[in-house]
Amino acid sequence: MLGCSVLVRICIVDTTFARVDMARRAIAVLKQLMPDAQIFRRTVPGLKDVPVEVLRMFEEYECDAGMVFGWVGPTLTDKITYAAYSIAMQLVQLKLGKHVIDVTVHEDEAGDEESLLSIAIDRAEKHAYNLYLLLRNPEELSRLAGTGRRQGYPDVGSLE
Amino acid sequence: MLGCSVLVRICIVDTTFARVDMARRAIAVLKQLMPDAQIFRRTVPGLKDVPVEVLRMFEEYECDAGMVFGWVGPTLTDKITYAAYSIAMQLVQLKLGKHVIDVTVHEDEAGDEESLLSIAIDRAEKHAYNLYLLLRNPEELSRLAGTGRRQGYPDVGSLE
Amino acid sequence: MLGCSVLVRICIVDTTFARVDMARRAIAVLKQLMPDAQIFRRTVPGLKDVPVEVLRMFEEYECDAGMVFGWVGPTLTDKITYAAYSIAMQLVQLKLGKHVIDVTVHEDEAGDEESLLSIAIDRAEKHAYNLYLLLRNPEELSRLAGTGRRQGYPDVGSLE
Amino acid sequence: MLGCSVLVRICIVDTTFARVDMARRAIAVLKQLMPDAQIFRRTVPGLKDVPVEVLRMFEEYECDAGMVFGWVGPTLTDKITYAAYSIAMQLVQLKLGKHVIDVTVHEDEAGDEESLLSIAIDRAEKHAYNLYLLLRNPEELSRLAGTGRRQGYPDVGSLE
Amino acid sequence: MLGCSVLVRICIVDTTFARVDMARRAIAVLKQLMPDAQIFRRTVPGLKDVPVEVLRMFEEYECDAGMVFGWVGPTLTDKITYAAYSIAMQLVQLKLGKHVIDVTVHEDEAGDEESLLSIAIDRAEKHAYNLYLLLRNPEELSRLAGTGRRQGYPDVGSLE
Repeated sequence: MLGCSVLVRICIVDTTFARVDMARRAIAVLKQLMPDAQIFRRTVPGLKDVPVEVLRMFEEYECDAGMVFGWVGPTLTDKITYAAYSIAMQLVQLKLGKHVIDVTVHEDEAGDEESLLSIAIDRAEKHAYNLYLLLRNPEELSRLAGTGRRQGYPDVGSLE
Repeated sequence: MLGCSVLVRICIVDTTFARVDMARRAIAVLKQLMPDAQIFRRTVPGLKDVPVEVLRMFEEYECDAGMVFGWVGPTLTDKITYAAYSIAMQLVQLKLGKHVIDVTVHEDEAGDEESLLSIAIDRAEKHAYNLYLLLRNPEELSRLAGTGRRQGYPDVGSLE
Repeated sequence: MLGCSVLVRICIVDTTFARVDMARRAIAVLKQLMPDAQIFRRTVPGLKDVPVEVLRMFEEYECDAGMVFGWVGPTLTDKITYAAYSIAMQLVQLKLGKHVIDVTVHEDEAGDEESLLSIAIDRAEKHAYNLYLLLRNPEELSRLAGTGRRQGYPDVGSLE
Repeated sequence: MLGCSVLVRICIVDTTFARVDMARRAIAVLKQLMPDAQIFRRTVPGLKDVPVEVLRMFEEYECDAGMVFGWVGPTLTDKITYAAYSIAMQLVQLKLGKHVIDVTVHEDEAGDEESLLSIAIDRAEKHAYNLYLLLRNPEELSRLAGTGRRQGYPDVGSLE
Repeated sequence: MLGCSVLVRICIVDTTFARVDMARRAIAVLKQLMPDAQIFRRTVPGLKDVPVEVLRMFEEYECDAGMVFGWVGPTLTDKITYAAYSIAMQLVQLKLGKHVIDVTVHEDEAGDEESLLSIAIDRAEKHAYNLYLLLRNPEELSRLAGTGRRQGYPDVGSLE
């Protein structure tokens, strides 16, 4: 957790490959919850270009946390690319020691475009709220431990 | 193994994605077995946020060991995310030179919610006991080598 | 993003395994868009030899960015090789802090050779344009965020 | 290869998850072949705990080589865990610059428990012999290059 | 590329698991093409032991390049082992900044032993020639860019 810094700097990276402008929704939520936040946004062609861009932005703007927005096709090759990307995003976070919340939509999550759009928007907005909690209200996350929260779908709740 | 330090500091990270509060059960076991242990707990949104949080907590609180609690959905994408997470948790342990016991429940382990709940609780409690053994009683682990211990299920025993 | 450096140095690595000279097409696009660019090109036998060659070239020629061109067979072994290659290309980018755009064609993308050829050429040329945008016109990438751009295929557009 | 050091120090890590005490068999072979060897053994709960324990033991006891003993279930999740473990064991070896021979038994290797037991014992003993060859008799390994040696099963021999 | 050093030092690592002595064929080709080359060869039990041995040899003999020879079984476990090995060989190359050409034969490449033998020999010899090109004649590799060269099989040629 990042504690209550007086001025928080957030890096955002998304792609031209994605079919929904998720970053715009997330930024709207972040600005509403943290009007003082400084937000830096860049767009790269696709998933493979995201991790190094995050690294470059953190170094250039000395960010405290980040969000990335990816879009993954349905083929085995797409899944392998997602695997390599996911490992790289872990390495970036471990190298920086900072949270970078990963918002990824997979085309095989839904059969129709309308559902994909609504998954993408819901996931982006809820994860923006999650980043706010990590930065400013970690106690709320602790309160929700093990309660089956979902992003992109309705919460499924606790089994207890 | 960590030897018999007079004061042990343990870091715990779990998620709001999980459907069972496994950390609470594990902490209860740890406190019973090691009343002197100092336990630090934080909750993050999901699996992808766990490794960097562990790293941050170890650096902030100078912990001796840790436990993490994950919950994994049944799709191929969920499995890939688990793979990247597992590699990252290995990297975190190798970087820290400390044990961080991974308690993960996979939704495809059981067909009904009651079984999942009981797997989760059993796994959390038994792995808390395992962490105690690593920290305070490694001889007992040596005695149990190759005896088919399971967490989440009954022990299967030795083939010999 | 690399900003508007007065002289940009680009490293290109491709293979003798590939069945299309994609690098030639990409270089033509790069030279048209950035006549001042210095381009360094080398060819290695296959995908496994690409990452270390990129590293060697960046160190030898102090490049600002790069492009790599791979060709992947249809078997499970080919896919695993692609996975290891993809992870290595992420590591190379994170080590260098530079963008290296990955142009890979997979033989299972199309059933006939004519389609594969046209995918390869389209992907190489569009990604060369993407590298130009990253280096000289990042605002255009921002404008295209979430608009469903594709390389190798026609753009699919936004879902909104 | 490690050459003919006068005193060789070997680290052994196994698990309580395994259903056969493979380390005991391997140690018996190592002691017979290298009566002067110093052997350090520890047991951890499962596969995920092995790599960091190896690292800790090498640093604590300044070992020259090691052996690890794992047991892998039959599910996809077990296989993914094995993948992350395998990558971590590679990282450990590359970090230490030392050989750590990996003896892993997979439950899907045999349909009945008797066969699994015999695979486990054969693999442990033959790999202990392999470690002896690496440490004291690398010429014998060179003589056997490409001859289809197997551990857990009978040798299959050369195709030539 | 390694340029035209007056004396080239090449490290070779193969296994006793393989069923064909591929290294012998590759060394014969290397010696014919580069009579001045110094070749250092070692054999380890299996694939998992190769990467660290390469690292050890490069450090001991200050090699300029290397070749490794692996043999992979047909099961999912074998494929996972190959994946971890492939990632490790990428890490070794990136750490050393040197080319290490990977010659791997997969048992599911052919149904009969005769074909496997001929794949293995062809692949070993052609990759030895590739290493010669990397070291002494990179212009020839550039000339062959995108022309569908294969090792183990006949060349498939360009699609253009």
